[in-house]
Amino acid sequence: MTETTTAMQQPLFNKIVIIGLGLIGSSIARALKTKQAVETIVGIDNNPDMLMDGQTLGVIDEIGTIDGASFENADIVIISVPMGAIDSIVSQALPLISADTVITDVASAKQSVVDAFRATTDGKTPTNFVPGHPISGTEHNGVRAGFATLFENRACVLTPLPSTDSTAMTTVQTMWEICGAKVATMDISHHDSLFAATSHLPHMLAYTLVDALAKKSDKQEIFKFAAGGFRDFTRIASSDPIMWRDVALLNKTAILEMLAVYRQELDELTADIKNNNAVAIEARFRNAKTARDALL
Amino acid sequence: MTETTTAMQQPLFNKIVIIGLGLIGSSIARALKTKQAVETIVGIDNNPDMLMDGQTLGVIDEIGTIDGASFENADIVIISVPMGAIDSIVSQALPLISADTVITDVASAKQSVVDAFRATTDGKTPTNFVPGHPISGTEHNGVRAGFATLFENRACVLTPLPSTDSTAMTTVQTMWEICGAKVATMDISHHDSLFAATSHLPHMLAYTLVDALAKKSDKQEIFKFAAGGFRDFTRIASSDPIMWRDVALLNKTAILEMLAVYRQELDELTADIKNNNAVAIEARFRNAKTARDALL
Repeated sequence: MTETTTAMQQPLFNKIVIIGLGLIGSSIARALKTKQAVETIVGIDNNPDMLMDGQTLGVIDEIGTIDGASFENADIVIISVPMGAIDSIVSQALPLISADTVITDVASAKQSVVDAFRATTDGKTPTNFVPGHPISGTEHNGVRAGFATLFENRACVLTPLPSTDSTAMTTVQTMWEICGAKVATMDISHHDSLFAATSHLPHMLAYTLVDALAKKSDKQEIFKFAAGGFRDFTRIASSDPIMWRDVALLNKTAILEMLAVYRQELDELTADIKNNNAVAIEARFRNAKTARDALL
Repeated sequence: MTETTTAMQQPLFNKIVIIGLGLIGSSIARALKTKQAVETIVGIDNNPDMLMDGQTLGVIDEIGTIDGASFENADIVIISVPMGAIDSIVSQALPLISADTVITDVASAKQSVVDAFRATTDGKTPTNFVPGHPISGTEHNGVRAGFATLFENRACVLTPLPSTDSTAMTTVQTMWEICGAKVATMDISHHDSLFAATSHLPHMLAYTLVDALAKKSDKQEIFKFAAGGFRDFTRIASSDPIMWRDVALLNKTAILEMLAVYRQELDELTADIKNNNAVAIEARFRNAKTARDALL
């Protein structure tokens, strides 16, 4: 065993501003603090409780607002508000952020975020903006729901544009790697259709099931006799309704496409059941089981 | 502390025959053995591996077949085969089982099981038959997947018929209580529509989703980027395809009814997304979240 001495190291980042101290924003803050990767984290949120809690919990160092001083000399500004608020945040904040500051976001669909930037900049996407999407979350929300290991060993997809500056890209990639994420890159339209399939559609289906059952007269009894399978299947229906309303509307094209595919498949299963087509039903279920088992 | 001496007690049941040593059958055997509630468990299965494993694991005491000797002097015969096999099992076994032996089953839908009995007895349901349905399971199957605590604190629904003997009913109820289950009773048609909603429909939806995605050309990538929500949502798609094919066909009417309700709700959500009806989308999601959160 050799004795090692650790010199006091300067954190990699001097100042990071997080707009939106929800599950994702506050978890990034916690992860970066845990790794001692940042000197100062400034939190901005339209809900004063989130800011107070953020400061009390030591998640942020300073409370900021959308103004020049809050963004001054920031290495990175992270936009982690619900998707429906991005338009308004970008139009207010973008003119106040220096071209030397890297901007990124965490939204579940990327085209609408790029559109929000373009709307503010007469069609040109700023070269310092790196669209991002961490593939992690829980059904809980708010600053208290966050935790430092949320991104550990999870994918984080970045969808740089041709105009995106490569230094900005490296900065955001490094930030996510410090948070424990495995960074992948993808083009925007591919991202938006991929996650419509794997994430957005399941949320639509789970919400629809629970909503449908909750409308039934015997709902008390239905939920009373719900077993473990039902609980797991519907966990994502406990997710933030605002966030998912926004995803539904802001990744509309890709989600409608997947809903149409799903409806077609469900109609085929329904026909197979009606026609007592045991072979076809079993083949579907077996194909699904094989694919699902391979996930593990 | 007082010293207590436990007298050697006679087990409550002398002999129990379990036809079908899968997840449920073998878990009943384990639970009854753990509680020392039975002298001898006879296992019957058309798969010799299940019987060998069952004996090696100590889950059963004897290997039986569908014959008079196997059923002789049994307190209870439990039919825990896949639903599609019940017809044939009942027609072979019922004539060999004494009226003094209680018969029960564990199928997820009850009318078709009663019909199978009636088909064998010229329309009369034997008074010693108590239809049952333990509300527990996992996505695994086979004798090795079972465990003694599977039914602990879970519901078990019995659906006695007007003709069911009350002593037989008490015997089955006692057996389930020994296994740790909370017994509820319900009429058959109510049972079948309730579980079509809370269990059968979710399985149909999960299988359909995974099957639909597994057919897509980019399925590798879809599953690669699947997050925790997807894994939970689709866990039940790893369930036994044979079992669920049988449920789909043998609770057909109630399942088709629920599929129609679901399709209608999904069409409404689709229309709301198409029409950018943010208020309606949020209301649905919020209603679902409230109901789902109340489950916990």
